[in-house]
Amino acid sequence: MSSRPSTWNVPASKVAKRAHNPIRQIVDKLKIDPNAQKQLISLALGDPTVFGNFNVDDSCNESVIKHLQSFKANGYPPAHGTEQARAAVAEKFNHPDAPLTSRDVILANGCSGALDLAINALCSEGQNMLIPRPGFSLYDNLAVSRFIEPRFYNLVPERSWEADLDHLESLIDENTACILVNNPSNPCGSVYSEQHLRDILALANKHHLPIIADEIYCDLVFAGNTFYPMATLTKEVPILSVGGLAKKYLVPGWRVGWVTVHDRNGIFREVHEGILSLSQLILGPCSVIQCALPDILHNTPQAFHDKTIAQLELNTKVSVEGISKIPGLTAVIPQGAMYMMVGVNVSEFKDISDDVDFTQKLVAEENVLCLPGQCFGYPNFFRIVITPPADRLEEAYSRMKEFCARHHI
Amino acid sequence: MSSRPSTWNVPASKVAKRAHNPIRQIVDKLKIDPNAQKQLISLALGDPTVFGNFNVDDSCNESVIKHLQSFKANGYPPAHGTEQARAAVAEKFNHPDAPLTSRDVILANGCSGALDLAINALCSEGQNMLIPRPGFSLYDNLAVSRFIEPRFYNLVPERSWEADLDHLESLIDENTACILVNNPSNPCGSVYSEQHLRDILALANKHHLPIIADEIYCDLVFAGNTFYPMATLTKEVPILSVGGLAKKYLVPGWRVGWVTVHDRNGIFREVHEGILSLSQLILGPCSVIQCALPDILHNTPQAFHDKTIAQLELNTKVSVEGISKIPGLTAVIPQGAMYMMVGVNVSEFKDISDDVDFTQKLVAEENVLCLPGQCFGYPNFFRIVITPPADRLEEAYSRMKEFCARHHI
Repeated sequence: MSSRPSTWNVPASKVAKRAHNPIRQIVDKLKIDPNAQKQLISLALGDPTVFGNFNVDDSCNESVIKHLQSFKANGYPPAHGTEQARAAVAEKFNHPDAPLTSRDVILANGCSGALDLAINALCSEGQNMLIPRPGFSLYDNLAVSRFIEPRFYNLVPERSWEADLDHLESLIDENTACILVNNPSNPCGSVYSEQHLRDILALANKHHLPIIADEIYCDLVFAGNTFYPMATLTKEVPILSVGGLAKKYLVPGWRVGWVTVHDRNGIFREVHEGILSLSQLILGPCSVIQCALPDILHNTPQAFHDKTIAQLELNTKVSVEGISKIPGLTAVIPQGAMYMMVGVNVSEFKDISDDVDFTQKLVAEENVLCLPGQCFGYPNFFRIVITPPADRLEEAYSRMKEFCARHHI
Repeated sequence: MSSRPSTWNVPASKVAKRAHNPIRQIVDKLKIDPNAQKQLISLALGDPTVFGNFNVDDSCNESVIKHLQSFKANGYPPAHGTEQARAAVAEKFNHPDAPLTSRDVILANGCSGALDLAINALCSEGQNMLIPRPGFSLYDNLAVSRFIEPRFYNLVPERSWEADLDHLESLIDENTACILVNNPSNPCGSVYSEQHLRDILALANKHHLPIIADEIYCDLVFAGNTFYPMATLTKEVPILSVGGLAKKYLVPGWRVGWVTVHDRNGIFREVHEGILSLSQLILGPCSVIQCALPDILHNTPQAFHDKTIAQLELNTKVSVEGISKIPGLTAVIPQGAMYMMVGVNVSEFKDISDDVDFTQKLVAEENVLCLPGQCFGYPNFFRIVITPPADRLEEAYSRMKEFCARHHI
């Protein structure tokens, strides 16, 4: 008792101190001094709903309202989700080569929550996990906050952001717990070929490494590309696939995600049980939306999805054309999702030191906000979110062109 | 590389293995062999919505529907919640002796999520936290899953479940991170007096220990009792209060909770920052309900709350009377919340060994399901949830009376 401190001193926990999100520091710095003479055009936030041009389908709203008005959708769902909601996810993603039942589905609080469940069930403190670079920063943040070492495998822009498999393999050791694969990719907008996915799976199988497949952008692919669910391409490698309503149904704020457990050989028996145990600590998404989930997944008209893709394809075209006219910048043409990475050749600019400097000066002079590649572990690129209306994108690229002309050698 | 296993072997993480919920084992066992001749009456689940007699107010539904139909409530909210939602919570719980602004509020995925944030921000692996016994099992589960040692301080049934302060103080050492106080209490239904709360606070102040106040049942108190928010009774002790919509607004499935940070002397500066960092890993509750939160908190008619309390008071009366007529059982009269603890004097029964045996035989013979006290760390009591309609409660107590008569010495 005498060992208690004699004054108040309450530090944050070790975990809380590690949970720091480095992107915030970068973004907060970017926002310090925008050009207030021009209206902000933000190409920074991966939220398709902010400009009003991507709206949820009416049928989804109607189902939620129906369940609200039933007064029967307000109680605690089971921690891993209602049977009906899990069955709907299983049916939606069931595939002859990757069969699913409701028992293989765990609902979570958004795809972030699903990722947290998957990482937390698979990786222990002191282990490492392999993460794509460039990649969504949450992978890194979740790992670090749990004392799991993130090891970054390179994606190659010249090969449409395919993984550098030699580099990936060189990172594997006895403490590697899993490989995280994000396809289609944020921030790259890449959609992997069947062969490339099979090559990654062969490596995973060789080293007996399970995979977390972040497939939140599944089906958001442009003409000429095909999305292959990773679990459909292997009989050997156990896979936790994570997904959710956020992007495809245009409701990121609804916070509905899921883990699907693909475990054809019983390798994930304990991990599966672990995910269920972990899900009981917090419980999953809003009950009303869980009740609407079967309607949302089964009855949203295909025309809704087609319209989304058509808009994204148009915006990609506008973006690629816009960037192609700007000396010093190089777009890597996206194949899906809602992002495009643009390379900045700093040697062509007289006073741009790197991607952070580029995006900071761009917002200061033109009030166009993009996230620098360093937010994704990848300097001298920046990420463009291609969901704003085409005329806003054109205006943004026009300002970017003037900006680059001013700073070009 | 040669050190990789030569076959598939993917264990669950250490955290996942620790996340096991012991209540499930007990409950699963209870449910094995119910008497199918009688209709199940479950007094087990702390969910007021299951019987259809406690419904959310129409005005809350209407606000959610309004925001759904606006198509402006579907985007990502800030990780800690929208400014308007946090301001509404701050305004609702602001008190001259415990002032709050929106900056002091962090939204979470239900009160469970708020508890997780609070515990995770305050306690590090290897530390201990003081938890009431009997108490809500999630405290224990969250602590254990994070390698925090739960230390249980006794509540005293003869003093309406007040804390045994001598026992509590005896548990404090240099590794104690905080005291968790649950008022009104699940499973006890107790509502602490101002003096008792001040006594706990004096201990906390003496040992410089912050408090997590689980106040999810705030305002659910019966005539003659008053709920005192713990933060209003101290200028010295920093407090994280957790709450949510679940119980008072009868929407546990909506998963809207919050942490309010009461930190009048800057002691929680780092902890507050830590909670914000942690909230960024998952993001908070459904955006649509966040948008409706100001309406829900400010415009739900008082008559709705009065009706809830009146029903709970009636059910308490029915429950106390029902149990009082049963030899061998002793109810501790609840003062609030929606629970009642009942003592089982096993020495008066010829073939009941303990609370688990009592509840197991009760469901097997009478299909009345209650949670044994061991689910709350407190043997030879069982918990009754008093939210079913009064006639179901009367039927349950009638069956319980016959059951006890059969087994009484």
